[in-house]
This record gives sequence, C-alpha cells and structure tokens, in this order.
Amino acid sequence: MPETKPLPEDLFINGADEVAIRQDLVLVALGKRPADRLVRVGRLLDVHTRTWLEDQEIVIRGRRIAYTGPAGSYTGAVEERVHLPHLAAVPGFGEVHKHIESSHLTPEWEASLVLPRGNTWTCEASHEFSNVDGPNNLEFWLTARKHGSPLKIFPLPGSAVPPTAYEWGGGYFGHDEQASFLKSSLMVAGLDEVMDWPSVWNPDNPSHDRLWGMIGATFAQRGVVEGHGAGLREAHEINAFAAAGLASDHEAWTPEEVFDKLRRGIFIEIRPHSLPDIIKALLASGLQDWSQIAFTTDDRSCSDTLKLGATDYNARLAIENGLAQEIAIQCVTINPARHMRLTPWVGSIAPGRFADFVLLDDIATLSIASVWADGKPVSEGKTYLPPVPTIDWPDWATKTVNIQRRMVAEDFAIAAAPGRKTMQAALLRPFHWSDEFITAELPVENGCVQRDSSRNITKFAIVDRFSGEGRTAKMFWLGTGPATEDCALACSMGHDKHNIWVVGSSDSAMAMAVNALIDNQGGWALVDRGVVTATVRYEVGGLMTCRPAEALHAEMLNLYKAGEKIEWMYEPTFSPRWWPGFPERLAFATLTCAPWRWVLVAPGPRAPEGFVNVQNGQVHPIVW
Amino acid sequence: MPETKPLPEDLFINGADEVAIRQDLVLVALGKRPADRLVRVGRLLDVHTRTWLEDQEIVIRGRRIAYTGPAGSYTGAVEERVHLPHLAAVPGFGEVHKHIESSHLTPEWEASLVLPRGNTWTCEASHEFSNVDGPNNLEFWLTARKHGSPLKIFPLPGSAVPPTAYEWGGGYFGHDEQASFLKSSLMVAGLDEVMDWPSVWNPDNPSHDRLWGMIGATFAQRGVVEGHGAGLREAHEINAFAAAGLASDHEAWTPEEVFDKLRRGIFIEIRPHSLPDIIKALLASGLQDWSQIAFTTDDRSCSDTLKLGATDYNARLAIENGLAQEIAIQCVTINPARHMRLTPWVGSIAPGRFADFVLLDDIATLSIASVWADGKPVSEGKTYLPPVPTIDWPDWATKTVNIQRRMVAEDFAIAAAPGRKTMQAALLRPFHWSDEFITAELPVENGCVQRDSSRNITKFAIVDRFSGEGRTAKMFWLGTGPATEDCALACSMGHDKHNIWVVGSSDSAMAMAVNALIDNQGGWALVDRGVVTATVRYEVGGLMTCRPAEALHAEMLNLYKAGEKIEWMYEPTFSPRWWPGFPERLAFATLTCAPWRWVLVAPGPRAPEGFVNVQNGQVHPIVW
Repeated sequence: MPETKPLPEDLFINGADEVAIRQDLVLVALGKRPADRLVRVGRLLDVHTRTWLEDQEIVIRGRRIAYTGPAGSYTGAVEERVHLPHLAAVPGFGEVHKHIESSHLTPEWEASLVLPRGNTWTCEASHEFSNVDGPNNLEFWLTARKHGSPLKIFPLPGSAVPPTAYEWGGGYFGHDEQASFLKSSLMVAGLDEVMDWPSVWNPDNPSHDRLWGMIGATFAQRGVVEGHGAGLREAHEINAFAAAGLASDHEAWTPEEVFDKLRRGIFIEIRPHSLPDIIKALLASGLQDWSQIAFTTDDRSCSDTLKLGATDYNARLAIENGLAQEIAIQCVTINPARHMRLTPWVGSIAPGRFADFVLLDDIATLSIASVWADGKPVSEGKTYLPPVPTIDWPDWATKTVNIQRRMVAEDFAIAAAPGRKTMQAALLRPFHWSDEFITAELPVENGCVQRDSSRNITKFAIVDRFSGEGRTAKMFWLGTGPATEDCALACSMGHDKHNIWVVGSSDSAMAMAVNALIDNQGGWALVDRGVVTATVRYEVGGLMTCRPAEALHAEMLNLYKAGEKIEWMYEPTFSPRWWPGFPERLAFATLTCAPWRWVLVAPGPRAPEGFVNVQNGQVHPIVW
Repeated sequence: MPETKPLPEDLFINGADEVAIRQDLVLVALGKRPADRLVRVGRLLDVHTRTWLEDQEIVIRGRRIAYTGPAGSYTGAVEERVHLPHLAAVPGFGEVHKHIESSHLTPEWEASLVLPRGNTWTCEASHEFSNVDGPNNLEFWLTARKHGSPLKIFPLPGSAVPPTAYEWGGGYFGHDEQASFLKSSLMVAGLDEVMDWPSVWNPDNPSHDRLWGMIGATFAQRGVVEGHGAGLREAHEINAFAAAGLASDHEAWTPEEVFDKLRRGIFIEIRPHSLPDIIKALLASGLQDWSQIAFTTDDRSCSDTLKLGATDYNARLAIENGLAQEIAIQCVTINPARHMRLTPWVGSIAPGRFADFVLLDDIATLSIASVWADGKPVSEGKTYLPPVPTIDWPDWATKTVNIQRRMVAEDFAIAAAPGRKTMQAALLRPFHWSDEFITAELPVENGCVQRDSSRNITKFAIVDRFSGEGRTAKMFWLGTGPATEDCALACSMGHDKHNIWVVGSSDSAMAMAVNALIDNQGGWALVDRGVVTATVRYEVGGLMTCRPAEALHAEMLNLYKAGEKIEWMYEPTFSPRWWPGFPERLAFATLTCAPWRWVLVAPGPRAPEGFVNVQNGQVHPIVW
C-alpha cells in the first residue's frame, strides 16, 4: 500500500500528527508497507508483564516502533536488518522529574550526555528556566528537539513562578499561562512540582490564588499535578498534600515517609540520596506492588552525571541495594510513563511508542552497550553518535543577566543607625530552617555594620538580574563563604528565583564577582584577594551553557582548583545538605520553598530589604 | 478556619470546582476545619502498596475523603463518628468498560442495582445510546448524577457512530463532536472502544477519516482511546492494533491472546466469560505484574446482575479461580482508575478521592456488608438506601422509535423476479462470521420468495427507527426465530445501530411485532400465532427502562414464559455466542464490528437492500 502523502516529522506530539503517524504504522505493522529497520535482539524486557522474552525483533518505521515479536515473525518488507544476539533490549529510561538546568547544559548537550546513559525521555521540571524567562519557557524546551535532538523533553511549567509571593521578575505563571501551555502542546504533561506549601494550604497566602489557578488549569486540561512534599512527614500534612491533588512527591527521605505517602495515593519518585535506605526498607517490608514508584534525579550536575551516570545510575543503585533488575527497570520506564500519562509514546518497547531502547551487554549490572532513539543508534558505549545540532540561541535565552550598570562596593554596604558603635544583626546559615533567625551584635565602622570573621560571620547578598537596576538585598550570614580577606564567590544559579547570589569577605570583591557574571551573562565567578581567578560560563539563561559536558566539567574543575586557594568558613546546619569546603551548595541555599522559613530575596514590595519569612510573610530589619 | 463561600455541589469534575473542593479538603485534612464524618474500620486495603492496614479511620468532608490514618490519629473536629470494627474497607469498585444500556435500566436505576454490589464508578461505553441519540448523549449520561445519584458515570462517546459507514441515523460523531465532548466535561475520560477495525487500518474504508478524526481529537485532549480487538489474534494484527494507539482490549478470549496483547502494551480488560481460563493461565505462567489488567462487565442484563452480581462478581470469579483477593480488588479499583487517568477521583481510599468504599464482612469471599458513596452509606446488604431520584426523562430520551406509520405485512415481502418459480437467496445465520454468505434456492408464491421452515429458513428484517419512514431491509436467515407459524419476535435493541430487528414465520406477525414496539417506544414484542403475547418496555432510548431492576426482570420472565409456547429454530454457529431456545442473543447478532462480515442493516445509500459486507463494502442482492 503506497504512501499518499509525506509523513509528519514526528518530533513533537500533537493530535493531527498522531493520526498520520499511526495510520502509517498500522500498515507497516500489517506488513502492507515496508519498515525502515528491524533490530533482532537476544532478549527483550516486556515491562508490562515484567518478563523477559528471548530472541525478539523490533520493527521500526520512522521514529516509532511498528511491530515487536519473536525473531522471524514479521512478514513485511524491511529496508535494513540489524542482529544483536548478545544484547538485551529494555525500554529507554525516563526521568519523571528532572531539572535539566541543573546539568547546566542546554538541552541539545544534555541529550548528548544522558542518551548514552540510557535516558531517552525527560519530564523537564522547568521550574528554573521558568523563573528566568516565563514567556519563552516552552519555546526554550522544545528548541533542541525542533533541531532534531533525539531526547524527548516533556516540559512541565514551573508552579512556583515566582517561587513565593515575595519574589518577582522573569515571569509570572497563573491560571491563564498554564492553560495556554497545556493547550499549545501535548508535550506539556502537567504542572511542575507544587512546592510552595504555605501558599497551597493557607488561603491568606498572597500566592494562594495564583497557584491554585495553575492547579485548576492543569486538572481542566487532564494534566498531571506534580508535588514537592519536602518536610511534610506528619500525617495531617501528608493527607492535606494528597487532598490538594498533588499526585507525586520526590522529597520523601525516609522509608516511613515513603509508606505514609504511598498509602495516601501519592506516587513516589525516589532520588539517589535516600534511595538505598528506602529500597532496603521497602524490600524488608515485603512491599507487594511497585507500580506507584519511580526513580528520579531532580538535580544533578553534568560533572556528577559524567562520574555517576544519569537515570542508569538511579536504577543501578536500586539493584545494588537488592531490588530485582526488572523492577528497577520498571521504575525508570513504564511506572513513570504511566504516572505522567505518556504511555502511548514512551515507557515500553511496544508498537506506537518511539523506537527508543537501551541495549544491555550485562543485565545484572545494567551495563549499557548502546542506545537507540528515534529508531536509530545514538550511542556506542559512552560515545554519542549523532551530530549535536548547532543552535543559535536567541537573545531571550543568552541575555538574561539584565543589570544595566556596574556594581560597586557601596551596593553591598549595610548602613548603621547614626551614632551606633554596634548593631544587632539578623543572621542566617545555609539550610537554616528554624522558625527563628539567628542574631548577633556586630561592630560599626565608617557608618556601616561590619563582618566578624572571628565569629564566622560574613556578608551574603542577592542581586536582582531582571529589572536592569541590580537591586540588591544584603545581610550577614553565618559560616559560609570566604574566610580569606577580599574574596567573593558569585553565581547566577540561585534556586529558585535565580537572581545572583554573592558571598564575600569584602564589599568590593562582591561587586567584582557580580560584574564578572554580568560580563559572562551568568555562571560562577570567584574573586581571590581582589582578582577574578575563575569563572564558569552559564551563558544560556544564566543557568546553562551551550557546550559539551566535558568542557563545562573542565571549567568547574578549574573553579574548584582556584577555590582551594581560599579558606572557607563552615558552620554545620542540615546534614547531608551542607558540608565544609567550597560552598557550591549555596546555589541551593537560597531556596524559598518548604521547609525554608527566613530567607533573603531580591528587594521587593513585600520585602523591601529582602529579608522575609516565606511561611508567613513576616519581615524584619537586617540590622537594628 | 471558617468557610468563606459555599462549596460546589461536587457532582461533576471540573477544574474550577476541583480548586474550591480541594482547598477546603486541605484545611479539613490539617484539622483546621471540621470534618463531616469519620468512619473507623477494622481493616483497610491500601491498593497502592497492596497491603492491609488494621484499625484505620477515614475522615470525610462533603463527598470526598479528607484524611486516612490509624484509628485515633485525626486531631480535627468531627461531626459524626461511625465505628465498624468487624468490617474491612476496600475502594469502591469501578467498571472500566460497561454499557449500562445492556442493563436496560436508566442510570439512576442502574445505580440502585450496582451500588449495593460495590460498583461506585463506571466508565460508560456509551456506544449504544450514542447510536440512538448522538447529540444528547453526554447530557443523558450526566442527568442521573445531576439529580444526586451517587454512581459516578464517566461517559466515553461511542467511536462507532454510526457503527460502520453502511449505517446511519441517530447521530454522527467525528473529530469535532469528540473534541467538543472532551472539552465540555472532565467526566468524559476518552473515546469508547474503537471497534470498526477495517476502517482503522484501511485508508479506503469510508469511515476511516471519521474514526481517525475522533482518535486524533482524543489524543489532543489527553483522553484515553479504548480499543476492541475482537478476533485480532494474529501477531501482525495485534501489533497494528497497538500501533494505532488503541490502549485497551476487552475482547481477548484466550490466555495466549492476553499475553500477546499485554506484551504490546495493551491494557487488558477481562470479561467473566473468559476470565477463569485466563486467570488460571496467568497464575500458572507466574505473571509478575498485574497492573495492566482490569476486570470488566461490558454487557450484563439487570436480570444477570441480580443473579450473579456486578463488578463484585467479576472479582469474586477471579478469586475463585485462584487469584489473591488483594490483586483481584486492584483489578477493579486502582488498575482501571489509573488506566483511565481517573486516580485523582476514584480507585483508592485516599485523600481527595470520592468517599466511596465497600465494606466487606468476609474478605475471602468478598462478601459485601455495606457500601458507602459520596461519603454516606448507600446500601445495607443488597438494599439500596437513598431514594432513587425521579427523573422526568425528556422526549429526546423517550421518543426514539421514530416510525410515523403502521407497519404492514407487505413491508416484509420479498418480491421474486417475474415468471420465476424459485429464486436463489442469500442467507445468514446468527454469528455467521465467514467471508461468504450462505445460499439456498427458495420457492416463489404469489410473486414473492417464500420461507422454508423444513430447511430451517425464515425471514429476518431490520426496520429503521430514525427516519420516521420505517425503511425496511429484509432477507432470509437460517436457524433462528420461530418455527411455529404466524409468530414473530422484535426488539429495538439491535447492536450496534439499534434499529428494530424482527424475525418471524409470517410477514403479518412481523409487522404486528414491530407495531407493538412503536407503541411502547422500544423493548421486546412477541407475537404468537397472530397475537401479541408479551412485551418488555425499554421506553428510554429504546434500550432502557426507568424502573427498578426487579420490575424489568419480572417482565423479562414473562417474555421468556410466553416464548416457551413457541418452537424455536436452531442452527449452530459460533459457540458460546449462540445457543438453542428463545433467541434473546439475536440482539447481539446484528453487530457490524469485527469479526462480522456479511450483515443486514437498514437500507441506505451504500447498501440499498441493507445486505452488505462491512469488511469491504461489497453488496449483493438478497434474492436473484
């Protein structure tokens, strides 16, 4: 049966293309039209029944699977045949919750990094870039695929844009924006992690209506509302979380919490840091059904992915902790695909789905020989085979550090009240989640309140990168940043609003570090004794770079090396979130979601000095 | 925290109401607003982990669950407390594929029948009523709930409206109609069973574009496309079915077919008639994962439901055949809910879901003591507790047998060619699925071709009930209908177009039977030796009656009793679909979906005599 019209390119899912693609696939499956490729494998994992099938063939048409069955069973014509008798095929792995921004690679380079590691689809938790550029968010995530990248990215617009009602800039997502995203593309699977718990439960919270508008719009378009239940471990809170319609949680840390959440119908997405304990406990308890469980990455730098792996690492870790390989593979394939309502396209090696599969040369160790995506081989070992598309990212992506002036030391000075020799100061530590902030009495010199390195007290600031004005909030922090004099570290990745954060032992070093970021349009900048000694470039959105993982990793190593020449303060707070040495984790220390309370944000109408308790909107002077 | 505005009635799901309802539930879960009711049960089945929990409490607000946890753990205020220490709570059962029309009860009476049997939600395969009244289809299915009926009906518009391109009347569903249904209500979960396989695969089939338009519209609105793969057992056909995006099948008859379909990613909905064999085989094979399996009813008369049960019967049958009770319950709760993307509302006893649960006094036998729905008890034993709403069904529902004249014997006469003493006739048998029809030479008398009861040959006709004209197609059939002279049986339930079918040993008896149906606006009519001896009234849509199950059952018993006075022809065809005696199964013998080939339909442009091969559109004279 000849083709009558050209087939769609099949990069993005939409109703009309599905019709044309599947009409064609049906005829290929029936053997009435020729297939492009037939891959015969030694074994194939059927994740629907959790059983292995021996000596199977996968028949491919375009980017999709048309037919699967025992070797030799397909009767249609085939253009190209590949026989891989020693390899076992399992479905392409999927990330149910990942911030690609945390790889710090643009999506086309992310693809080249994670595909050889088995990861063929990603539900992009687009919270980070959403906060940097709301209006162009969807366009951004679909661009690499538009250029042919085989990684399927399903963007979920950030629910927290802005993260809390005390932040601003970069974008604003409410009911109408979310409705529009969901209507504009079937690639949009739902709403990314609802994380501003105070605004969920509390009708008086100023973000309450905005956030519920997004939740309502997601229900209305049959999307999935993803949750983020960090610190919600008490039974009433877990019940409230589930009652809100938040369908998943990736923040469960303990086995008890996992059980308590599973039992309230919350789909559990386990991250590696808590995975060993949880898997062992679930196995010990004899959990009878794993279908409500997936493994996920959330945040992982490309350096860590190079070292550990991508989704394969998550699955391997589960296997190493005793989980059957087949269940571990379900937890990164069919389980997340079903949860995200994406089973017609990903999650199994079955007709109609994208022809994405991982070829293992050892099942026990999940050793990946090669990966296929869009019906073609995309990797051999760790080598990515296709050309990475050259994308000329537009200005809205590459000019996102909008500060139309040079920062100066005075921007970071904290004025004392007239005539005072000391002043009380509000202090925070990284990952300080108490209801109360810390206080200290600090000396005044030249009319300004001063650091006290003898007590591990330094200065921390947030510089807005959206208004053009570089509005700056600053205060004293405890136990982080350089102890060495005249040093500073700045970064444009500052979860979740991604303003610039800077910590420094002198105000001028802080200004210098921020100015280096303005020049590079984002990334990291380290100032050592008055000199910029290292930068890392995140020129896209101030969060990512358009380069191979290896290049970025080398630059990071250079940053760490330069950082070793500086002495770093340390004050323990929440382990394992915060550790001594180069304070890379400060990028996550500016979060404003639960369980954070007191935080520093860019100055805004609801927090003129930027110091605010995001649980209740309380503000307080930074010095008094 | 006091309420600020009245809560939605919470009968139907929509984005805006979800927001208001869940905002309130969150506060109840947190104990900040009082709950309506707390039910403490001896055991509770968590279908997410497939584990029993002892001594649990379910906290209810409005029609929903706000909180679940160990007895005594909820700290909020509660208006009413119920303690049922000897009962075990499991989620309300759901039907993933059911034609309520086949109960022959209107939805409010269906509710009163199935709720005491545990069935609290139904994905209504609205193929039948869709074919009778397309435009009012959705309105029809939502009316009972609008009047407060606690059964949640999720209508899926029929994909086969008309069933094939050779039928007409009652409605026409294409892309635009389906898009409109899905947009108008979140109660619409997807597209009902795609069953016209020739029009799916064959681009030349005249229904091809219409059907794919509906499939495309369903994908576009994130709905589920349900399949119907009867007779598709060959590997290429199963692959093609899956490649088409048809997500489920309820027509798999053999264990091999179930495996072959599961492995291609098709969700399997097992019906009772093939359930014992399939369950035993799946258990014997050591199936590792049951999450892609549900049990379903499809068609069951209220008489059979009174005798056997509703969804509880399906689950009980699986248990009797060796399946663990917990898995059997998953197959009628969480599994179908997840497949239909309805988990936020049904499928488990968890916060945010409707407070629908079944209370068992014996788990091993699935013995139902009581059922709760919408947060209140709705049954004690087999007794339905709430009042059945009085619905004054409008004319579009009750005036659907549109024949604006009296039928006469001449309508059923089959004219012979001039001068012929015999003629060749095309014959069908019920459930005759061959590529070829049967032929016989029949005598001519008075210018008309005659029956031959000595050879088991009688006359069968389809009378259109949509145009007002009573257009009639007739032909000779083998081995069905009355052998006794001057008898006829007619019915307005004639799958799938639901025109009137009539079989009779005289033309005048046939006319008399059809006229009785016109008078009753549908149902059954039996003519015995020239006298109407029994009727059954289906006054709603010609398919259902607005009465209790017991009343209809009594009327059916009366019909059977009258039928016993008549001798019935028999000719074996497909067992177990066709058996000797009163030919009730003729209602399903007029199907036009796969695996049917030659059928009789109302006369239309593509089949002027009504005799057509629906696989390829071929027509043939009924006599020549």
